Amino acid sequence: MINFQTSPEQYKHWRLTFDGPVAKLSMDVQEDVTLAEGYKLKLNSYDLGVDIELADAIQRLRFEHPEVKVVVVTSLKPRIFCAGANIYMLGSSSHTFKVNFCKFTNETRCAIEDDSHHSGRRYLAALNGTASGGGYELAIACDEIYLVDDGNSAVSLPEVPLLGVLPGTGGLTRLVDKRKVRRDRADVFSTLAEGLKGKRAKEWGLIDGSFATSKFQESIDSRVQELVGSGASDPQVGIKLNPLPVEVKPSGMEYKYVNLILNREQRYADLTVRGPDTNLPTAPEEIHKLGDAYWPLQAFRELDDVLLHLRVNEPEIGLVCLRTEGDAERVLAMDETLAAHRDHWLVREILLYMARVLRRLDLTAKSFFAIVTPNSCFAGNLFELLLASDRSYMLNSEDGKVEIMLDQLNAGALPMSNGLSRLQSRFLATPEKVDEILAHQGGFVTESAEEAGLITFAPDDLDWEDEIRVAIEERTSLSPDALTGMEASLRFAGPETMDTKIYGRLTAWQNWIFQRPNAVGPEGALTNYGKPTQAHFDFKRT
Amino acid sequence: MINFQTSPEQYKHWRLTFDGPVAKLSMDVQEDVTLAEGYKLKLNSYDLGVDIELADAIQRLRFEHPEVKVVVVTSLKPRIFCAGANIYMLGSSSHTFKVNFCKFTNETRCAIEDDSHHSGRRYLAALNGTASGGGYELAIACDEIYLVDDGNSAVSLPEVPLLGVLPGTGGLTRLVDKRKVRRDRADVFSTLAEGLKGKRAKEWGLIDGSFATSKFQESIDSRVQELVGSGASDPQVGIKLNPLPVEVKPSGMEYKYVNLILNREQRYADLTVRGPDTNLPTAPEEIHKLGDAYWPLQAFRELDDVLLHLRVNEPEIGLVCLRTEGDAERVLAMDETLAAHRDHWLVREILLYMARVLRRLDLTAKSFFAIVTPNSCFAGNLFELLLASDRSYMLNSEDGKVEIMLDQLNAGALPMSNGLSRLQSRFLATPEKVDEILAHQGGFVTESAEEAGLITFAPDDLDWEDEIRVAIEERTSLSPDALTGMEASLRFAGPETMDTKIYGRLTAWQNWIFQRPNAVGPEGALTNYGKPTQAHFDFKRT
Repeated sequence: MINFQTSPEQYKHWRLTFDGPVAKLSMDVQEDVTLAEGYKLKLNSYDLGVDIELADAIQRLRFEHPEVKVVVVTSLKPRIFCAGANIYMLGSSSHTFKVNFCKFTNETRCAIEDDSHHSGRRYLAALNGTASGGGYELAIACDEIYLVDDGNSAVSLPEVPLLGVLPGTGGLTRLVDKRKVRRDRADVFSTLAEGLKGKRAKEWGLIDGSFATSKFQESIDSRVQELVGSGASDPQVGIKLNPLPVEVKPSGMEYKYVNLILNREQRYADLTVRGPDTNLPTAPEEIHKLGDAYWPLQAFRELDDVLLHLRVNEPEIGLVCLRTEGDAERVLAMDETLAAHRDHWLVREILLYMARVLRRLDLTAKSFFAIVTPNSCFAGNLFELLLASDRSYMLNSEDGKVEIMLDQLNAGALPMSNGLSRLQSRFLATPEKVDEILAHQGGFVTESAEEAGLITFAPDDLDWEDEIRVAIEERTSLSPDALTGMEASLRFAGPETMDTKIYGRLTAWQNWIFQRPNAVGPEGALTNYGKPTQAHFDFKRT
Repeated sequence: MINFQTSPEQYKHWRLTFDGPVAKLSMDVQEDVTLAEGYKLKLNSYDLGVDIELADAIQRLRFEHPEVKVVVVTSLKPRIFCAGANIYMLGSSSHTFKVNFCKFTNETRCAIEDDSHHSGRRYLAALNGTASGGGYELAIACDEIYLVDDGNSAVSLPEVPLLGVLPGTGGLTRLVDKRKVRRDRADVFSTLAEGLKGKRAKEWGLIDGSFATSKFQESIDSRVQELVGSGASDPQVGIKLNPLPVEVKPSGMEYKYVNLILNREQRYADLTVRGPDTNLPTAPEEIHKLGDAYWPLQAFRELDDVLLHLRVNEPEIGLVCLRTEGDAERVLAMDETLAAHRDHWLVREILLYMARVLRRLDLTAKSFFAIVTPNSCFAGNLFELLLASDRSYMLNSEDGKVEIMLDQLNAGALPMSNGLSRLQSRFLATPEKVDEILAHQGGFVTESAEEAGLITFAPDDLDWEDEIRVAIEERTSLSPDALTGMEASLRFAGPETMDTKIYGRLTAWQNWIFQRPNAVGPEGALTNYGKPTQAHFDFKRT
């Protein structure tokens, strides 16, 4: 079982150090500390274990170190920044694992950009040596890139020429969409195994500058000081992200607010999120005091962890039935607090994190059905779980009231990758409905929810059990691949952004290539890399 | 060899009839007239041969029948509109063919929308029977959809539940992006093999209306009359699209203005477009008189044909070296005429067609290098060939002048699928350069072209031959799959549109699925469809 929880004291591959408003995130991969057998992480190459630490570091920077204004991403290895994803690891991994590995690393790089964009922290890639493949892709997720000019170090994307696969961690998209490198130059660069060095790399827009070895550290420091600026450092004090308590059982996972029950035989899971069990504070200072025990942070950290667990450790689970429990009024009161104090750094970080977790759900290759029953609590931020689901079933009960509730957090505070709120995405055909629904006072009982278009199906007591059972059986009988492609298409109506391009166009092409004999067959380039044997291609263009 | 040229007299599967401003395009597929062995085109299912006729009909409508305001797309078979792409054809086709088949059918449906959007012709799908899979996808490419209410006929996308593949001809994208069907309903609909009928289909936005069998024809006629409007029909008279003269040789194809030389051993082709050989008329009436012999129409029809030929009949050709020859001044003069009269229906249609052909090039899974030499004619509309190329090489000659020239047609008259001009796409990083370059008087000789960022490389006489030779050798040695994915990513920087979503996200996922054992393996759903054997899935979610 792959565990996504870690902390700086446990890091094997990164060092995270602080100097007032400047953090330094240094890569120093231990080649023998790998997640699986059969490869060594030479030259700061990485596997999922290395990236789990990176994701953790970026997350902690935001919550534990709000005083940090600039993050320097660099390496402790001489002459090499990072050689990218380990090729032997890729070559020996299953298709499913490769795809999930790339998705996670993409999310980590998008999290860097989310921090830069929304929280204003600047990320500076200080390339003290060659950055190739995923190494350069990590660099272009940063705001600025500086490369040492030692006559040898280069930036490169050698995947196409050396491995017959794509630089699939956002590289091709960011090259032309973020750094806006001219497409013909991007073409040349992406087919040039050795990459480009200082002057030309700068001229082509691949880096922001290069400095001679003797001046490298000094020049980086000076640029960092410029980015820090002269203003006084904020006196904010972070909160600690403690390990999540979780009980792992054969049949699922039990967190404080999140419960997962695996129905392995039927290939579906019941995932329940419980609302707050006490009244929550309304002042930022009290929230700060609660720290990671504050419901929105703890519950969404648990949800994040369980989604990653489902993706990587439970590939045969094809459907997740999302359920909620608790007191809706408490959720709405909490959302009111979050909305009122969204300019407070901690509340802002919590909201941005909740949005990232929900996007992780949008991007999870499992079907999601929201199941709404009398004890459900699909209210406010938890209502986003219903909106993120592929379908929803809400009991139309004669006996008890079943209700869903929206609030201001459904109005855009938790955007999808396409930049829209889930409510906007739902009502593309009738955008006026979004405001109507948001203006609605009180909850929606089943019939009014159906009428408002907020749910998919509303079976009555008599049909309920059968209908849910049949829906689950039907869904889990379908081709898992067709469902993945279908959901990836239907979930993202409306505008596209750099993020959706990375998860849509780029990722889908990479997944395609990750199955092609020219890459992964016995004569494929990925299979034969580093071996005495040579790749042989079927040259038919598809 | 698959031939993309046809004409209404030769149609086997469609009937195209006219009644003043109304055209009727009726599907009546001959089940035994197939492009390959091993399947029968039952129930108005189609193969590439059927779609070649459809594409031809839509093209002819625009040029030969400008008087047509409304096109009714219907079927001559009782109780069935169209059952979509033939499943046995798909099951027995190579991966490469499947992908090219889907691309062409997508382009045909986009051409319908292009006609509707830019030329105002309304397309009305009169579904006199069930429209399933590609049949419904054809319907949603139309502006309006009406379904007969006979208690039986339905619209459906049964690909996911029955075949384990996607409705990949734009269906999933148009469902949520064009018809803006709510995503949860789209999910239900796309997993429901039997589809939906009249009332519910209308309520969910899948169709625009349904009429009882007895009133169907009358109701369609009445809606058609509304669309035609009461205004007098335009007195415009179309031009005839004659068969393209082409000499097919073992080593290539020779058209009047387009020449293709296949270097099969080295897996690349030289594709030369020759500019006009005489001075061209400047008045629309004279252009009309010239008809399909007018250079822009003839040359681009030839280019269109040769691109389709390369895609489908020459899969092993991985690289196309684009060359031009001729008198640049003539091209510029012609472009001036086209720009001056772009409101004239024929000129408008010609420009829209040129744009479609160039988009076909953008979407062709081959590498393109533009090669600029002293006798080249990369000017105006022909300069788009250079901009559409992945790279360009321009000789920096001591002896003769080598020049490229831009004009107003490079300013947006020939947009890419992403809605930008190729010049805008090229200069995303420095948008101010677009206007500077367009304002530049006269041509750009090699050095100034390089400085302006218009070309990739400018080798001198000494290096030229070696550099081109090595560039070709290097390109054709790379994995064709990695190149396809890389080019599809780099060619479309900037915004995304419904078209780019169809060719990017949707198509890439479909291509992925078209390789998955769950679809095409011995136990896959596509393989086993209609056989006594059953599909068995590997249920791992990827």
